[in-house]
Amino acid sequence: MGHRITILGATGSIGKSTADVLAQHPGRFEVAALVAGSDVRGVAEMARRLRPSFVALADASRQTALRDALSGSGIANGAGASAVLEAVEREAETIVAAISGVAGLAPTHAALKPGRRIGLANKESLVCAGAAFMRDAAAIGAVILPMDSEHNALAQALASGHPDDVVTMTLTASGGPFRTWDAARIADATPAHTAKHPTYSMGAKINVDSASLMNKGLELIEAHHLFGLGPDQLDVVVHPQSIIHGLVHWRDGAVTAGLANPDMKIPIANCLAIERRLTMDVPRLDLAAIGGFTFEAPDEARFPCLRLARAALAAGGGMPAVLNGANEIAVAAFLEGRATFSDIARVVEETCAAFGGAAGGEPATIEDALALDREARRIAAGLLAPVARSAAARL
Amino acid sequence: MGHRITILGATGSIGKSTADVLAQHPGRFEVAALVAGSDVRGVAEMARRLRPSFVALADASRQTALRDALSGSGIANGAGASAVLEAVEREAETIVAAISGVAGLAPTHAALKPGRRIGLANKESLVCAGAAFMRDAAAIGAVILPMDSEHNALAQALASGHPDDVVTMTLTASGGPFRTWDAARIADATPAHTAKHPTYSMGAKINVDSASLMNKGLELIEAHHLFGLGPDQLDVVVHPQSIIHGLVHWRDGAVTAGLANPDMKIPIANCLAIERRLTMDVPRLDLAAIGGFTFEAPDEARFPCLRLARAALAAGGGMPAVLNGANEIAVAAFLEGRATFSDIARVVEETCAAFGGAAGGEPATIEDALALDREARRIAAGLLAPVARSAAARL
Repeated sequence: MGHRITILGATGSIGKSTADVLAQHPGRFEVAALVAGSDVRGVAEMARRLRPSFVALADASRQTALRDALSGSGIANGAGASAVLEAVEREAETIVAAISGVAGLAPTHAALKPGRRIGLANKESLVCAGAAFMRDAAAIGAVILPMDSEHNALAQALASGHPDDVVTMTLTASGGPFRTWDAARIADATPAHTAKHPTYSMGAKINVDSASLMNKGLELIEAHHLFGLGPDQLDVVVHPQSIIHGLVHWRDGAVTAGLANPDMKIPIANCLAIERRLTMDVPRLDLAAIGGFTFEAPDEARFPCLRLARAALAAGGGMPAVLNGANEIAVAAFLEGRATFSDIARVVEETCAAFGGAAGGEPATIEDALALDREARRIAAGLLAPVARSAAARL
Repeated sequence: MGHRITILGATGSIGKSTADVLAQHPGRFEVAALVAGSDVRGVAEMARRLRPSFVALADASRQTALRDALSGSGIANGAGASAVLEAVEREAETIVAAISGVAGLAPTHAALKPGRRIGLANKESLVCAGAAFMRDAAAIGAVILPMDSEHNALAQALASGHPDDVVTMTLTASGGPFRTWDAARIADATPAHTAKHPTYSMGAKINVDSASLMNKGLELIEAHHLFGLGPDQLDVVVHPQSIIHGLVHWRDGAVTAGLANPDMKIPIANCLAIERRLTMDVPRLDLAAIGGFTFEAPDEARFPCLRLARAALAAGGGMPAVLNGANEIAVAAFLEGRATFSDIARVVEETCAAFGGAAGGEPATIEDALALDREARRIAAGLLAPVARSAAARL
C-alpha cells in the first residue's frame, strides 16, 4: 500500500501542484481524500486522475452537481461541513493543508492526529491561532511540515544545528510588482497591477498580499510560531530573484540557507517525502545562468502592511488574527473595486487600533480565534466606504 | 577540565585564527600542544598566551632558540620530527590540522586517534592520499571536520538530508585577483599581483593557487574524498563576493547552502564546537548591506589549472598527488622569480602527462603518496628552465 495523502484545498494552486508532484511518482502514493471549496469540475477532474477514496466539497449547495460530475467513477463523495470532516477523518499519513483563508482553520485543526504529518500551507492556522494550533499539534503528536517556500527553506536550513543556537532567521521577499514604484503610484494601483507577480503564479488574494508585502508580514508571524523565535529574531530582506527563500543565522557567525528555483512543487515534494527525498524532474539550480542575486531592505514607508504585521507580531495575543481578518476584508474590497490599494493598510491599521494592546490576548482555541476574526471583519467593514459595507457584511 | 586542543601549524594563518577563536572563549578550551615549522618567535609568543603543555618545532636546527624563547615559561618544548610526533601523541580531543603542504601529511595522519576530532585544513592529506587517509580515519574512528570555508559550508548544508539524496555539490570561488584579466595579462602576472586576494588574507603559496584557480581544483579533489561524490557531481561557480561558500543540490530540486562573511574564524569555530555551536563575536551577515551576489562560470581557457585539476580528479589514482607536487614546485619557482605565471599550468600539465593514466593507481599509504609526490617534484623541476633546476632540487 502506498503512503496515503489527503489534500485539503485540492483545486487551489497548492493542491494542483501537489497533484503534479504525485503524478511524477506513480504507485508511490495513494490519495485518501480530496477536499475543495466549490469547484465541482476541477475536483471531479482531479479525482478521476488521482482516484481518491472520497471527495468532499465545502459548498453544500453543490452536492448534486458533485454527485453528477463523479457519477460512474465509483468515488464516494459528499458536500458541506460534515463531508469535509469525513474527509479529514479518513485514514491518511499525510495531510496537505492548503485551504486558503480562515476557512482552512477548522479543517486543518481537525486534521491533527497522532503521528500524522501536516504539510501546512494554510497561513491562517498559524497567523490567527498559532499558539493554540502548535500546542494542540504537540499534544496530539502531529508533525507540522511547513510547505510555504520560505518556511520550508528555513526548516531545511535549521537541520544544520541545534534550534537554541539560532540567533535570527531571515525570510526573503520578491518585493512584489510594486517594488520599484513610488508611493503615489502604489496608492493608485489596481487589482490588474497586482496580478503580475514577478516569480510565482498564485491566486488573486495572495497576489494582493504579495504586492502590499502583507504576505511577508503574515509569514513572519508564521515563522514565529513554527520556529519559536521572538519578533526581534525575524527579519525580511527583499530578493527579487526569489532563489534564496530563507536563511538561518547561527551564533557562530555561520549562516545556512534554503534555495530553489521558484516552483511550489519543490517544497511540496519536500513535505511529501518520508525520510528520503523524492526525485523531482525539475531544472537544476544554475547560479552562473542566473548571473546574480540582489538584496535590499524592505521599505516600510511605501509598504506599510509589513510594518503593521510586524507591529501585530510584537503586540502578540489576538492582534495577528485581527490584522489578518481586517486585511481579508480590505483586500476583498480592493479586488471588487470598492477600495483603493492604500485603503488596505489604512483599514488594517485602524482595525488594529480599535482593538489595541494584544487584542484581548492569545486565542485559547480555534473557536476563539474565529470569533476574534469575525469581530475584526465587522470593524474593518465599517471602516470601508458605505457602499462597501453591505458587500462586506455578506462575506 | 576544558576541551583539549592541539594546533598543528600554529603560526600560519589558520593557526593564528584558531588562537583568536580560543581567545573569545576563555576557560572553555585547554591547549595541549602547539606545533610550528620554524617560527620560533611566533610560536613562543602564542605559547605564552595560550599556555599549552608542550610546544614542538619541526625545524630541529632551532631547538636552542626555542628553548631560549620559552625559558622561564615552564612550557615543555622540543624540535625535530620526534618532537612533532610527541605533540601529536599528547592527549587532545580536537586537533587543528593546519600545517600547509605535503609537510602536513604525516603529522595529520599520525593525529588520527579513536574518537578524536580532526579539524582538517591541510589540503594535501586529501589531495595526495585521500583514499588512504579517509579509509584510515574511518578504521581508527577519528572524525574528520572540514575546516576550509567551502567544505565546512558544504558539511553544514549536508545536514539537511540523507547523503545519498545529494545530486551534486557546488563550490564557490572568488575568482581570484585575475578574474577580469585577459589571457595575455595573466601570463605576465607577477607574485606581487597574486598577493591581492579579493576577500581573504592568506599565505603566498595559497595566494598563487587562488589566482590560478588551482586552489579551487584542489578543493574539488578534497570534496570528492570528504563527501564521496564522483567528479561529475562536483562543480565550481565563480562568486566574487565569497559569501555563499558551498551549495548542496538535492534530488527533490531543493538546494541548501552554507554562507558566512569571509572570515576563517567562522569555520574554525564551527569545527571547535562540540554538539552546540560557539558564540562568536563577528558581524551578522547583512544581505541588504551587501546589496548583491554575482555568479559566473569559471573560464578554464584563462585558468587552465582548474581544468588540469578536474582532469586529475577524473583520472584518479595517484594523479592528484602528481598534480599537487608539480604545482608546488612550479609555484615556488614563480614566487622566486624563476618561472612565469603561465609556466605553472605548463609544468603541471607536462608533469601529469609524463605519468599518464592514473599515475600508477591510488597511493595505498601515506608513504606511497609521499614517494609519488617526490617523483612528481623531480620531473616538474626538470621541466623548469635550467637555472631553476638547481634551486628546485634543494626543495
